[in-house]
Amino acid sequence: MQAVVLEAKHDIKIRDIDPGEKLSPRDVRIRIHTVGVCGSDVHYYTHGRIGPFVVEKPMILGHEASGTVLEVGRDVKHLKTGDRVTMEPGIPDPNSKASRLGMYNLDPAVRFWATPPIHGVLRPEVIHPADFTFKVPDNVSFAEAAMVEPLAVGMHAATKAKVKPGDLAVVIGAGPIGMVTALAALAAGCSRVVMADIVDEKLALAATLGPVTPVNVKNKNLKQFVSDMTEGWGADVIFECSGSPRVAPTLFDPLAPGGTVVWVGMPVEPVSFDIVAAQVKEARIETVFRYAHVYPRALALLGSGQINVKPLITDTFPFEKSKEAFDFAVKMPPTSVKAQIELPA
Amino acid sequence: MQAVVLEAKHDIKIRDIDPGEKLSPRDVRIRIHTVGVCGSDVHYYTHGRIGPFVVEKPMILGHEASGTVLEVGRDVKHLKTGDRVTMEPGIPDPNSKASRLGMYNLDPAVRFWATPPIHGVLRPEVIHPADFTFKVPDNVSFAEAAMVEPLAVGMHAATKAKVKPGDLAVVIGAGPIGMVTALAALAAGCSRVVMADIVDEKLALAATLGPVTPVNVKNKNLKQFVSDMTEGWGADVIFECSGSPRVAPTLFDPLAPGGTVVWVGMPVEPVSFDIVAAQVKEARIETVFRYAHVYPRALALLGSGQINVKPLITDTFPFEKSKEAFDFAVKMPPTSVKAQIELPA
Amino acid sequence: MQAVVLEAKHDIKIRDIDPGEKLSPRDVRIRIHTVGVCGSDVHYYTHGRIGPFVVEKPMILGHEASGTVLEVGRDVKHLKTGDRVTMEPGIPDPNSKASRLGMYNLDPAVRFWATPPIHGVLRPEVIHPADFTFKVPDNVSFAEAAMVEPLAVGMHAATKAKVKPGDLAVVIGAGPIGMVTALAALAAGCSRVVMADIVDEKLALAATLGPVTPVNVKNKNLKQFVSDMTEGWGADVIFECSGSPRVAPTLFDPLAPGGTVVWVGMPVEPVSFDIVAAQVKEARIETVFRYAHVYPRALALLGSGQINVKPLITDTFPFEKSKEAFDFAVKMPPTSVKAQIELPA
Amino acid sequence: MQAVVLEAKHDIKIRDIDPGEKLSPRDVRIRIHTVGVCGSDVHYYTHGRIGPFVVEKPMILGHEASGTVLEVGRDVKHLKTGDRVTMEPGIPDPNSKASRLGMYNLDPAVRFWATPPIHGVLRPEVIHPADFTFKVPDNVSFAEAAMVEPLAVGMHAATKAKVKPGDLAVVIGAGPIGMVTALAALAAGCSRVVMADIVDEKLALAATLGPVTPVNVKNKNLKQFVSDMTEGWGADVIFECSGSPRVAPTLFDPLAPGGTVVWVGMPVEPVSFDIVAAQVKEARIETVFRYAHVYPRALALLGSGQINVKPLITDTFPFEKSKEAFDFAVKMPPTSVKAQIELPA
Repeated sequence: MQAVVLEAKHDIKIRDIDPGEKLSPRDVRIRIHTVGVCGSDVHYYTHGRIGPFVVEKPMILGHEASGTVLEVGRDVKHLKTGDRVTMEPGIPDPNSKASRLGMYNLDPAVRFWATPPIHGVLRPEVIHPADFTFKVPDNVSFAEAAMVEPLAVGMHAATKAKVKPGDLAVVIGAGPIGMVTALAALAAGCSRVVMADIVDEKLALAATLGPVTPVNVKNKNLKQFVSDMTEGWGADVIFECSGSPRVAPTLFDPLAPGGTVVWVGMPVEPVSFDIVAAQVKEARIETVFRYAHVYPRALALLGSGQINVKPLITDTFPFEKSKEAFDFAVKMPPTSVKAQIELPA
Repeated sequence: MQAVVLEAKHDIKIRDIDPGEKLSPRDVRIRIHTVGVCGSDVHYYTHGRIGPFVVEKPMILGHEASGTVLEVGRDVKHLKTGDRVTMEPGIPDPNSKASRLGMYNLDPAVRFWATPPIHGVLRPEVIHPADFTFKVPDNVSFAEAAMVEPLAVGMHAATKAKVKPGDLAVVIGAGPIGMVTALAALAAGCSRVVMADIVDEKLALAATLGPVTPVNVKNKNLKQFVSDMTEGWGADVIFECSGSPRVAPTLFDPLAPGGTVVWVGMPVEPVSFDIVAAQVKEARIETVFRYAHVYPRALALLGSGQINVKPLITDTFPFEKSKEAFDFAVKMPPTSVKAQIELPA
Repeated sequence: MQAVVLEAKHDIKIRDIDPGEKLSPRDVRIRIHTVGVCGSDVHYYTHGRIGPFVVEKPMILGHEASGTVLEVGRDVKHLKTGDRVTMEPGIPDPNSKASRLGMYNLDPAVRFWATPPIHGVLRPEVIHPADFTFKVPDNVSFAEAAMVEPLAVGMHAATKAKVKPGDLAVVIGAGPIGMVTALAALAAGCSRVVMADIVDEKLALAATLGPVTPVNVKNKNLKQFVSDMTEGWGADVIFECSGSPRVAPTLFDPLAPGGTVVWVGMPVEPVSFDIVAAQVKEARIETVFRYAHVYPRALALLGSGQINVKPLITDTFPFEKSKEAFDFAVKMPPTSVKAQIELPA
Repeated sequence: MQAVVLEAKHDIKIRDIDPGEKLSPRDVRIRIHTVGVCGSDVHYYTHGRIGPFVVEKPMILGHEASGTVLEVGRDVKHLKTGDRVTMEPGIPDPNSKASRLGMYNLDPAVRFWATPPIHGVLRPEVIHPADFTFKVPDNVSFAEAAMVEPLAVGMHAATKAKVKPGDLAVVIGAGPIGMVTALAALAAGCSRVVMADIVDEKLALAATLGPVTPVNVKNKNLKQFVSDMTEGWGADVIFECSGSPRVAPTLFDPLAPGGTVVWVGMPVEPVSFDIVAAQVKEARIETVFRYAHVYPRALALLGSGQINVKPLITDTFPFEKSKEAFDFAVKMPPTSVKAQIELPA
């Protein structure tokens, strides 16, 4: 089949490739409709690796996908041919200790689409476990369904935060993950999100997502800003979504006593903390890794209209322009959030 | 001052009365603007008592109130003259063990407006502890601010439920408390609320509040209805807001494994449970009593637009028609939810 | 093989039977050493049924077992021949939604030893999934290992209670489950357990288990007793282990504000609650069903000496006296807690 | 009265001083019996300051105290003359937002004994709020009661950890706080504590406290050690009690997926974390500051024998040898844990 293949660093081709998949009794075969371009895909394209994961042989890109069920294995009960679906890109060992405890995202054996050497899904078809394939509500488009993957990251962060209704949240970093985290935080009960970034265009878009107060931290002190909003008390939750180690030294400054920091961004280098600053507020720090059991919840919120991801889908490319989509994503303008690729019907 | 006084059962008068209050250093004096009529006020009017609380001497009615600060005690820092405010009607002993543990609503010494022998606030002015008086955002009206009291009940229930983003909730009983609980549940992260009642007009109003699916349980089986919506899994949270002991025997039927029941309604008689039906799902049952630390959160959600109580304020009476307001509330038509009384400016 | 077979109500035979089991790659074959006699085994013996579960054909009894691994399937990694083990008697569908969420005990498809029509383990050998077979520490005897099953019920209850260090707990009902729940509550952080029962001999044994204060509720008022111990505050946690519907009406009386009731006992008929009595304390009520992920934790606490179940193993019978063991259990003297059957080596 | 006064750095005198206290209605006057020497007292002695807190005028030392009630204010109900008591050294503003939320330890207005400019209690008498004065069980000695203050730190850490029964904990640092944290962790449900330090004498003492496995991390790799104990899974909870920034880079290595790190030690400089190492395990990090609502719980556990602090009270000095006690504490031998000073009766 024709797929978007990363041959090596800087070398994307659309070409024929056989992923060599076979339908097992608990699998479904899916026609792919839409695939989002994620920062990790782009990073493999530009760097050929992410940490220990190195592209050593050609790999199909793409892991944020939606499509239509073409065939179901004989033990599959909750899906049928023709169902519109979205898929979790990570497949754990269902018998691992982590999976059995309900934390399958922490299973070290997880096989994740477009993480070497596992193929991604920028291709016409994929075979996938039905347990990680989810029916999409009728009123949710394929494009929105392909946003469930990044949204799930924000949802998982908001779930781990244990947001209480009426909380004030700060989201640091107005990239795609910061945006979905803001949406998730609001859906999870926050009364308002303070979005902190240094790019005005991104902040302007964030401000359209709901009760989001943008603050450009190039010009304003975040601690003071939040203090002024809260009579000196601080924010209940801070979501770190920038991945920048530079935010760490002052991370606890805008936090309320008894507040929570969720570390969503993944800084490549160690970060330096002032532990005592956290202790005097008894900050709880949650760290998150992908998501578990979140897809059905994200789809329910999209279906009911409690979350609207449409403003984040800023750019769409046809399959044959996939290389252009990646080149666009490499130099994404600040007014864009998410580029998606549509496969031919 | 002129106040709405319940002289005895069935006997409301607007007449002069001196509540005998004095401003302490941590108090504020408030001009009352709007007061909601609550079911408990009506019950004192029609029955002269609620359980052990008996109206033995004339008592001013009303406890859902908003107004404007007229004067502040010398130790008050967070309020000033002219501030628009809403007030918690219950004042605990701040030094009780329950208060110090952060559960002041469970302090048996709580003095609660319009609960005999404590006067309520259907009167021009009241003196109140500043710690239980909250500034109202500019974009929230006095009428909405007077809704914070009932909303706080729903918010407290939704908080205790520990709603996870994307949960499906069932609310049983589409009275005022069921309505605010539905709003709170959605704001707290539910993707959808199934509202169960037996009166079509109430269900019709509920369906306008957001992603609320009404179900008339005179005609439909709630367990089957929820099962069909959830592929047989059930609802994550059930809020019992009817107060009817009749719902208890089948209360756990629509619940998902590992789900939560929050018992908000206060049945006057013992209710009969099937414990094993709860156990096979490991149901968690939370019981709630009023609210604690909820007012600022409710105001934040009203101010940011995440909760909109305006559809629930269906009837407004001027102060001099207070008796008519109570008579109206006694026989409230099913299309009405909340009657409020406005005091002269 | 020779097994203890319940042919029908009142009819136990030791006779040859073929359970027809086959070793799968993820299974182990186990030589059974010790099997405890549980109230449910006894109930099948005396009544031929428990609720919907009816003994319609001969069934091997016994589900509290320990033994030695004889053979391991080819995919089994954490066990080897000769390992001393204890086994969970319930085997869920690992792919069910409940199992994947980490709540395998709530999977309706669970197959449970000695619950019709599933055979139990009063027999020389059994084949069992390795995932539900646990290595026993060297310093824990087979007799103690066979106590892990009932202990797991108490451990699960204490875990769900979310005991905080220093809590005071009340355990209602000094039967075997009440005893293991008291041990688990103390290990989980309680400073003291008040054990309530009406049989002095049971209370005397309970008092030997650690800081356990016995109270015979035939002579003493439990609410007053706990109130006197706590300056009127009440107990932090109440474990209902009697299964008696009669305790329900006053169940919340000894509870502290913000306290928790765990309903461990399984009353056969509906029980009647005073919901308002629970609400004014905002009681949290947890219901439990068997256990999940508890065996390794129970074994760790036995191995480290933090829990000692030896005082509860009061009576031991050889395999050939199994019928006598059951007849003894039917009329257990109040000084006995647990009878066990030892199989020939 | 004669008190142990730190005149300035390196200058302790026993001399007459008037702390100028007056009994308010909610206060008690206490005769001091025993006072522990804490690392912070010693630090003020040797350095004249801790961070922003500088000894600028003479200050009485000591904050770990027990004694006997001499006089009670007129509003005090739960204490009477002659009661043996222990006292929390920190007095918050009961009306602060933090206090009202139940987190009085996070109130920035806390006045803490022997933290400049507040006097400590190495003196015959003190006046203290009754709400922060706790009756000691008859079977708990004054020496043990004076250990409640440091024990409360460990108890608070174990409470925040939300230990589940059967957890394995690692405690890093076998100083006094590491020791009480190990005791608290075991009382809170841990099956075993792995105590990590680099001084064999401290580890030897730790090993006598219960199921504590000592490991000298000069010779052994902690990650490997814990991995070998847990079939590669890791520890459920890690308590960082060394205060050393050097432990941070490898802190998450011995942790299990989904595990918790509690940061008890207070490193004076920023520490450097590998966030991704925490994320792949979704580590939860709790930070703690002193304690709140813990004293009654610690006393209950001491009274019931669930915690035994006696092995930690290694050295006792009479009041007139207070200077010697401090000089001893400055160069504490590794076989000592806690020095206490006894006042004349």
